[in-house]
Amino acid sequence: MHGTETRKPLPGFVGGTLDRVDPIRSNARLLAQTFADPAARLLAMDGLEPVEADGHLVLEPLAADARVEDHVLLGIDPARRPIFARLIADLGPNMVPTPRSRAIAGLVPAEEVALYGTARSLVHWHGRHRFCSVCGAGTQPVKAGWSRKCDMCGSEHFPRTDPVVIMLAEHAGRVLVGRQHGWPQRRYSALAGFVEPGETIEEAVARELYEEAGVRVRDVRYVMSQPWPFPSSLMIACVAQTDDDALTLDQTEIEHAVWCDADGVRAAMAEEVDAPFLAPPPMAVAWHLLDHWLADVAGPNASA
Amino acid sequence: MHGTETRKPLPGFVGGTLDRVDPIRSNARLLAQTFADPAARLLAMDGLEPVEADGHLVLEPLAADARVEDHVLLGIDPARRPIFARLIADLGPNMVPTPRSRAIAGLVPAEEVALYGTARSLVHWHGRHRFCSVCGAGTQPVKAGWSRKCDMCGSEHFPRTDPVVIMLAEHAGRVLVGRQHGWPQRRYSALAGFVEPGETIEEAVARELYEEAGVRVRDVRYVMSQPWPFPSSLMIACVAQTDDDALTLDQTEIEHAVWCDADGVRAAMAEEVDAPFLAPPPMAVAWHLLDHWLADVAGPNASA
Repeated sequence: MHGTETRKPLPGFVGGTLDRVDPIRSNARLLAQTFADPAARLLAMDGLEPVEADGHLVLEPLAADARVEDHVLLGIDPARRPIFARLIADLGPNMVPTPRSRAIAGLVPAEEVALYGTARSLVHWHGRHRFCSVCGAGTQPVKAGWSRKCDMCGSEHFPRTDPVVIMLAEHAGRVLVGRQHGWPQRRYSALAGFVEPGETIEEAVARELYEEAGVRVRDVRYVMSQPWPFPSSLMIACVAQTDDDALTLDQTEIEHAVWCDADGVRAAMAEEVDAPFLAPPPMAVAWHLLDHWLADVAGPNASA
Repeated sequence: MHGTETRKPLPGFVGGTLDRVDPIRSNARLLAQTFADPAARLLAMDGLEPVEADGHLVLEPLAADARVEDHVLLGIDPARRPIFARLIADLGPNMVPTPRSRAIAGLVPAEEVALYGTARSLVHWHGRHRFCSVCGAGTQPVKAGWSRKCDMCGSEHFPRTDPVVIMLAEHAGRVLVGRQHGWPQRRYSALAGFVEPGETIEEAVARELYEEAGVRVRDVRYVMSQPWPFPSSLMIACVAQTDDDALTLDQTEIEHAVWCDADGVRAAMAEEVDAPFLAPPPMAVAWHLLDHWLADVAGPNASA
C-alpha cells in the first residue's frame, strides 16, 4: 500500500534508518555520553542547505569546543554513530530553499535524504522559535533539541509538523491534475492544501478539491505519506471519487487544471515529448500517487 | 474505509458541516459584511468549554459592540448563518479540558461536536500565540482569525495541527492494547504518539510501537482519522503486523500492555462485566479502530 512496500524508488525524505533514541533525549547524563562518543558525527550543513561529496552527505567529527546545547541529536545510525545537527541562532536569508536542497534527493542514498530532511525541519524550527509564543520571552533548546523551553513562563514548545493533503480526484477513468502560478512550463501535479483544525484527512481532501477546483468528492482513500521539509509538512496522499467533472477553478491558487486519462498520465510519467503535461519528479509524493493510480486502473505492469 | 462510510456513530469531532469559506477570510470587505449579517451567530463558550442547552450548543447573536478582530470566522452553516467564536486574550487556567469538554460528544449532534472542536483548537491556539516566536514582539489575529501576524517583523503564524499516530499491532489473531498511568481502572486502548519531523505516518507507527512496547512491525495500514481538540491533534489510526509478540514496555509511557483476541475485544466493546478490559468510549477513534479490526477479522456481523 505505501511506498516502502513497492520496488519503486522511495519518495524523497522517506526511508530514514536512524534510531531516534527517545530515552536519551530527556536524560542529561546519557546525552552527554552520546555527545562525547568518539563515533559521534555532525551532519555538515551550509545554513539549511545540504553538503554532499562523492555521493554522500558530509559527516564530520564534532569540534573540540562544541557544546551539546547548540545541537539536536538526530539519532544513532546503523553503524552506531550518534548523528547531530548544529542549530543556527539566526536563520536570516537561509530560510528559502535553494534548488540544491531538492536536488539532494538524486545525489545521495534515500536514508541520507531522510536524514537531511529531518535535520532541515528541526534546524529551521529552532531558528523560528527563539521566543516564547505565550509570553514573548526567550526560549532555550531542551531534550537534545526536540523541544524548547521558555526562560520566563516555563512553557514548553515542540517542533511542528503540518499535515498537508495531496490528492487526485478520479472521474470515469481520468484524474484531475493542476498547476500553480510560477511552476515550470507544462508541469501539472496533484492538488494539495493544509489540513485545518477540526478536520479529518478525508474532510480536508473534500474541502480542498471543492475550494480549488469546485469538485465535490466521495470515497476518499489514503494511499501513502511523505515528510516534506520545506519547512515541515507531512504530505498525506489520497485518491477520491467524483460524479461530476465540471471544474470551477480558484484562480488565486490554481492557474489551470485538467482531467487526464491513463494514457496521458503514463506518457507524462515516461517523460514522452508529446505527453499532455510534465509530471512531478519521483522525489515528490505526487509522482508516486500518479504511479499508484496507474497501477490501480490498469494493473501493475502498466505503471511507470 | 473511513468512519463516514459506515453506519456506526462517528468518532467525536468528526462530521463538521460548515462551509469554511476560505475566500472570505482574506477579504476585509466580505468579512465585514459577514460579521454584520443579522444571521451571524457567536458560538457561546465558557472559556474553552462548551455551553449546551436542550441538546444543542448555544449560539447567540453577536453583541452590538463586538469587533470582528476579536473573533474567528468558523464558517457558514447549512442554514446560511455565519458562525464566529470569540478569542480569549489570556487563557489562564482555561487551558486544561474539564470532563464537560469531552462529555459534549454525547450531548449534541455530531456536526455540533465538530464545530466545538474546531472552535476550541483555534481559540486555544490564539491564546498561546500572542507573541511572535521569531522575534518576541506582539502578534495580532488576521485573516478572520486563521492566522496571526507579527507587529514587528511581519512574520505570519498559522494554527498548528499536530499529527498523532494511534495504532494496533496485530499478531496471530490478537491485537496489542495498553494503558497509561492514571487512566481509569481497567481502561486499555490503542498505543499512540506524535509524528516527528522527517517521518512518514508508517515510520512513526513503527517507531512508536518499538519505543513503547518493543514490538517491530511491518505492513502498516491506514484506517481512519479524527481531529482531537485537546489542544490540536490529528489522530491517524492504523493497524500494523508483527511476527513476534514479545513485549518490552517503556514504563514511563505505558503502565501495562496485553495482547487480546477478538472475543476479548468484542466483550470489551460490548461492555460485558467479565470483559478483559474497559474499552475506550465511542467518541475516541481507538474505539472505531478496535471495531474496524473486529469487522476485519470476523466479518461485519461480528463487530460491535
